[in-house]
Amino acid sequence: MKKVVIAYSGGLDTSYCAKYLSEEGFEVHAVSVNTGGFSEEEIEKIGSNAKKIGADTYKNIDAVSSFYEKVVKYLIFGNVLKNNTYPLSVSAERIIQAIEIVNYAKQIDAKYIAHGSTGAGNDQVRFDMIFQIIAPEIEIITPIRDKKLARPEEIDYLKSKGVELNWEKAKYSVNKGLWGTSVGGAETLTSEKPLPEEAYPSQLKENDPKQISLGFTKGEFTSLNGKKDSPEKNIQKLEEIANKYAIGRDIHVGDTIIGIKGRVGFEAAAAQIIIKAHHLLEKHTLSKWQLQHKDYLANWYGTHLHEGQYLEPVMRNFEAFLESSQEQVTGEVFVTLHPYRFQLDGIRSKYDLMNSGFGKYGEENKAWTANDAKGFIKILSNAGKIYQHVKEEG
Amino acid sequence: MKKVVIAYSGGLDTSYCAKYLSEEGFEVHAVSVNTGGFSEEEIEKIGSNAKKIGADTYKNIDAVSSFYEKVVKYLIFGNVLKNNTYPLSVSAERIIQAIEIVNYAKQIDAKYIAHGSTGAGNDQVRFDMIFQIIAPEIEIITPIRDKKLARPEEIDYLKSKGVELNWEKAKYSVNKGLWGTSVGGAETLTSEKPLPEEAYPSQLKENDPKQISLGFTKGEFTSLNGKKDSPEKNIQKLEEIANKYAIGRDIHVGDTIIGIKGRVGFEAAAAQIIIKAHHLLEKHTLSKWQLQHKDYLANWYGTHLHEGQYLEPVMRNFEAFLESSQEQVTGEVFVTLHPYRFQLDGIRSKYDLMNSGFGKYGEENKAWTANDAKGFIKILSNAGKIYQHVKEEG
Amino acid sequence: MKKVVIAYSGGLDTSYCAKYLSEEGFEVHAVSVNTGGFSEEEIEKIGSNAKKIGADTYKNIDAVSSFYEKVVKYLIFGNVLKNNTYPLSVSAERIIQAIEIVNYAKQIDAKYIAHGSTGAGNDQVRFDMIFQIIAPEIEIITPIRDKKLARPEEIDYLKSKGVELNWEKAKYSVNKGLWGTSVGGAETLTSEKPLPEEAYPSQLKENDPKQISLGFTKGEFTSLNGKKDSPEKNIQKLEEIANKYAIGRDIHVGDTIIGIKGRVGFEAAAAQIIIKAHHLLEKHTLSKWQLQHKDYLANWYGTHLHEGQYLEPVMRNFEAFLESSQEQVTGEVFVTLHPYRFQLDGIRSKYDLMNSGFGKYGEENKAWTANDAKGFIKILSNAGKIYQHVKEEG
Amino acid sequence: MKKVVIAYSGGLDTSYCAKYLSEEGFEVHAVSVNTGGFSEEEIEKIGSNAKKIGADTYKNIDAVSSFYEKVVKYLIFGNVLKNNTYPLSVSAERIIQAIEIVNYAKQIDAKYIAHGSTGAGNDQVRFDMIFQIIAPEIEIITPIRDKKLARPEEIDYLKSKGVELNWEKAKYSVNKGLWGTSVGGAETLTSEKPLPEEAYPSQLKENDPKQISLGFTKGEFTSLNGKKDSPEKNIQKLEEIANKYAIGRDIHVGDTIIGIKGRVGFEAAAAQIIIKAHHLLEKHTLSKWQLQHKDYLANWYGTHLHEGQYLEPVMRNFEAFLESSQEQVTGEVFVTLHPYRFQLDGIRSKYDLMNSGFGKYGEENKAWTANDAKGFIKILSNAGKIYQHVKEEG
Repeated sequence: MKKVVIAYSGGLDTSYCAKYLSEEGFEVHAVSVNTGGFSEEEIEKIGSNAKKIGADTYKNIDAVSSFYEKVVKYLIFGNVLKNNTYPLSVSAERIIQAIEIVNYAKQIDAKYIAHGSTGAGNDQVRFDMIFQIIAPEIEIITPIRDKKLARPEEIDYLKSKGVELNWEKAKYSVNKGLWGTSVGGAETLTSEKPLPEEAYPSQLKENDPKQISLGFTKGEFTSLNGKKDSPEKNIQKLEEIANKYAIGRDIHVGDTIIGIKGRVGFEAAAAQIIIKAHHLLEKHTLSKWQLQHKDYLANWYGTHLHEGQYLEPVMRNFEAFLESSQEQVTGEVFVTLHPYRFQLDGIRSKYDLMNSGFGKYGEENKAWTANDAKGFIKILSNAGKIYQHVKEEG
Repeated sequence: MKKVVIAYSGGLDTSYCAKYLSEEGFEVHAVSVNTGGFSEEEIEKIGSNAKKIGADTYKNIDAVSSFYEKVVKYLIFGNVLKNNTYPLSVSAERIIQAIEIVNYAKQIDAKYIAHGSTGAGNDQVRFDMIFQIIAPEIEIITPIRDKKLARPEEIDYLKSKGVELNWEKAKYSVNKGLWGTSVGGAETLTSEKPLPEEAYPSQLKENDPKQISLGFTKGEFTSLNGKKDSPEKNIQKLEEIANKYAIGRDIHVGDTIIGIKGRVGFEAAAAQIIIKAHHLLEKHTLSKWQLQHKDYLANWYGTHLHEGQYLEPVMRNFEAFLESSQEQVTGEVFVTLHPYRFQLDGIRSKYDLMNSGFGKYGEENKAWTANDAKGFIKILSNAGKIYQHVKEEG
Repeated sequence: MKKVVIAYSGGLDTSYCAKYLSEEGFEVHAVSVNTGGFSEEEIEKIGSNAKKIGADTYKNIDAVSSFYEKVVKYLIFGNVLKNNTYPLSVSAERIIQAIEIVNYAKQIDAKYIAHGSTGAGNDQVRFDMIFQIIAPEIEIITPIRDKKLARPEEIDYLKSKGVELNWEKAKYSVNKGLWGTSVGGAETLTSEKPLPEEAYPSQLKENDPKQISLGFTKGEFTSLNGKKDSPEKNIQKLEEIANKYAIGRDIHVGDTIIGIKGRVGFEAAAAQIIIKAHHLLEKHTLSKWQLQHKDYLANWYGTHLHEGQYLEPVMRNFEAFLESSQEQVTGEVFVTLHPYRFQLDGIRSKYDLMNSGFGKYGEENKAWTANDAKGFIKILSNAGKIYQHVKEEG
Repeated sequence: MKKVVIAYSGGLDTSYCAKYLSEEGFEVHAVSVNTGGFSEEEIEKIGSNAKKIGADTYKNIDAVSSFYEKVVKYLIFGNVLKNNTYPLSVSAERIIQAIEIVNYAKQIDAKYIAHGSTGAGNDQVRFDMIFQIIAPEIEIITPIRDKKLARPEEIDYLKSKGVELNWEKAKYSVNKGLWGTSVGGAETLTSEKPLPEEAYPSQLKENDPKQISLGFTKGEFTSLNGKKDSPEKNIQKLEEIANKYAIGRDIHVGDTIIGIKGRVGFEAAAAQIIIKAHHLLEKHTLSKWQLQHKDYLANWYGTHLHEGQYLEPVMRNFEAFLESSQEQVTGEVFVTLHPYRFQLDGIRSKYDLMNSGFGKYGEENKAWTANDAKGFIKILSNAGKIYQHVKEEG
């Protein structure tokens, strides 16, 4: 019998696919990959529904740590915000989900992988590319894309096959993961309107400002308020604290891989705070040239990741650079949380290049003289002087 | 008699210089360059003090428009925030001040220019470089740098010469201009502490959210709430509205030109809002590749400007690029002001690439088919497939 | 009747297309675009063959000047060699050919454009993209790509339709244009073998070294050996002189747009000499920062052009930068031609930043002192000293 | 007694310094660092002269391997040619010499380091910066720079102190090392004139073309003509073979660190051949994106190295990227040597992405269909179509 692994979220599209493929004679193996968005209860419910719909097996793969190690870590090292806005929450998850799914398919010797993407978005590209590159021998099946099905048709089909579940559409579609939650709705289809308050899953619950401290070790987020834990746990703990302040909301408009612009709302309290805190620590501990060149690379790291190019070999080279740059990015960052915003208060680090004992502000005259400074500026002006001279004479 | 033009702010250091040079037999021409920070009253007071101290003439040069045209315009085109933080408020002003001063010196045929910078900061580099490049024949005099004078010595000297003005030091040193206000104090000499609320000149005065709209024409900020005016006037009007919300405060730690790290607080409500609004409009109206490459150039434009390299010929080439990129950056941006923060609501533009009528979200199937998308992804995967194949076989 | 414009070269593939479309009931308008590769006789012969095959009309569009103005000029400004090797001879031509063809189709109100590209190369992408972007309403017909025809089938078809022309295949396929000639053959299908001497159209005919001079005005090649002419004429004259020395041969291996690597031989005597001469002049007349940043942009200009992205709006922004950078790239470059190679002898320019009268080598001590130099180095070492100190203490 | 370590080359300047410091009461420790330019005999002679001049000790440090490991390796990984011309032969050597000298000074507990640089060039910056950063406690002494001495004065001084050596000035000053030989003379002080044939140390001795093969393992040059040896030995062997063909000569005009332009001739047969061969192998084995981004980084690596910034921490990050990129740069490169030039014939590599078995040229239709290609191009055109539509309607 033909084995198919289906990337199963429990939503209408993937439920349709599971049922449809089962009816078409496939042995259906439903898989969901948890990159930080599922609770225990949700996983249980998804699994139970998968069985109801006709999946032969269901498996939830816990990929939170692998998501952190393979992608999120480097997004932090690089302070990556796509177009200086979006922490690539969903873009990054899809990569890891695809890798986990294709590896699972190879493991159980499935010759087919199915997913529920349409033909209009980024996810189809991210999934298909990774499947094709890692396992070119596996065939990809995408009923929703191929048949251009609308929701009512899918619901009718499922009903006709005896599947009676509640498919009511939420007003806002939400995708949650370790690195943030995306939110789409009527407003994000326009260019003019913001998402209303109620569209965001995390509502404001705290009004009193609170100072927290984030500890980094070689660029990794290793402690929160002085308590050590794994970076992925710290991210989750911080998210829990900070989303009560409704921090990290925004709307991003970006270029999809297929060439059209799209708009997406998101909330990503932990991601925003960590990236800004990490960046501040870097401004104290990295050299001018590290900051300058890291920006270029990190910007590209984000672009390639967004476009599904995680397997491009250059990404490993970027990661080597980024890892190497974090050698001294160790210290504490102090942040105060306020409703809807946060403030970076300052940092403490033994690698702080600002308060190093050398050339301290106020007593810098010990390190160099006025004449040194004048000589410096004179020589620094040479090229400009020559250019000006030549331009006037030329 | 030896003519000296002195860059005169009315503060202790430049007052000392003016008196000292006058005593040394110079004909002293005090000049202040208004880049948006001086009120009429302040200018009058500065001028009157200049005379008291012994300046032969005093002149205030209104450089607000030239500041906008020569620098601020391109900082907006480039969405320039140094290290993704600082709008280069002071860095940019110094350039224009230097240019105006050296041109004035040439005009009145002065053979000397004096300024009050110390040997420990960026301003000496910005001033000296521009003076030396534009007028290598003019000699630069910097008594504060050369003599390493402390405040009490300067005050004593002035008193001894009969100058009785109030030199009490403010708790926070403040530098105001069109593009923002810098704030320094005890906290900015540490790495750990934020500036207290009271350090900021603009205090919170409005609590009710308010939506405003910024109109851009080819990247220039040509209207506010539907009312047209020159960009520099619009910046000033916006500042007046927005600083009542205490928006745009932050602390930047950056690399000085002389190689040490320094920390500076600032408030720049208008600059922050304009840059973010302009950037959002660009995300809707520029292509993916324009956004990608513009970032690289604008980042460098900011770095060179910060380091006093405004006269580097490459800056003119960057400006040509930036100007050219703004052809379709025309439209309205809607922003809601809140206490201490603002939210980008959306944009409206006839050049919006998102809602163009082509491939509208939801009906995109008209523009391409599932098979087109599959072909696209297949070909896009070619390079990765080959690489993977070779890696496994190799 | 359905009008089709066919991009017609006179070769087997486009002859097949012309005949086939004519038989299918199209009104066939054959067009060839001369980007510098056709002689008068060739054009006449191509036109006469087009008629024999059944084209209703034939037109040769002279696009040499437009090719220079739209593309070649900027390739020179940017010293563009793809992967530091290939002057993008063919890549650049295809763009202009596509633009001329689609404009012609619009002019005669044709609803179809046909071309003879296969599904395996770059040209299909360059042609189709430009056609689709400029005239999305026009349908593209590509019989060779769709039917995967081999040469014998095409010849049989033409014979069956009464077309008796000589279709003998040349051992090496050659594509000639203003900016170089590409050469393909059995060896270029391997990775190991060079093309043999006889594969190159231009054979060695001169052995005596000869010095020539290239005059540039704002980056444009405006005179050869002191004689002024239009840049495109000068390119052709230089090619005639230099290809007698068999200069400018090489093999490039590059990434095709569709993700596979391909290898192509070429000879481009004029392009190589002009680019290297222009670059040398720039090294004398541009600032360090212009040279540094121009490289980044020009490299990308070449990449985008190669990938058919000539219409990407960022290309116009790059061109603005490049044009702006050429302000002082004016002067003479002296080059000596030898068999198979050339030597850059030197330059003369009133904008030469090297011999400017300022700080001439040998008397530089007038411009600055030993102490200035020591101060410069001391301050320049600040950042490194602090870093080292912190690293050791940290 | 005050210990001084002097960077001693045996030339007039450093001989003067040694004698002068000895007379001034220093305990003089002369050191020369061999980065590949000295023969056994030369070292012996330099040492013997050092003693004659009054050095208390003389030491030659063999730094060929450390030069390769610390710098040359990365210059090959990055295919670094400054301004696409100069292999940074001397620039790179100076770095290693400075590091070896300062480490030696620390080892023998010297409190002073002396060198013979003038105040007009790059070497003073490279030396001083590295000395100051690694050992800020050591004082730097530079008699030639400080006293602005001319040759006759130095010779007179040495004579007056009883040193009778032959100080006749060579017509061309030559600096030889593992990575190339620089040549300066009357012509390089002009912008117009090339160096004459006789200025180059290596004269043409072979006329018959010869094919050689260079073997690379992870980017390192591990075999020559099939024979394995250490990369530094292979470089030397290749140099010996190739300089008989007078290959690798050129003149570079570059920006000095102190802001003036300078011109220098060089011959670097091995460096040129290795870089071009390595680059060709990379074009076959690296992905498009690796090639694109590596260029950016390598270009900067060269710029920073040239400017004496070897100790900048970003250099270590660049090296991590470069090393990581070489994982599959393994294979043979075939090169044919001709008088004054060489030709890259081709490569053989198990990591060759061109002839991988996948999508071989000619049978590529198996890997994708015409429809796949058309879908690819259609989607790839989306962004351009939308832009064009908006531009026309806007």
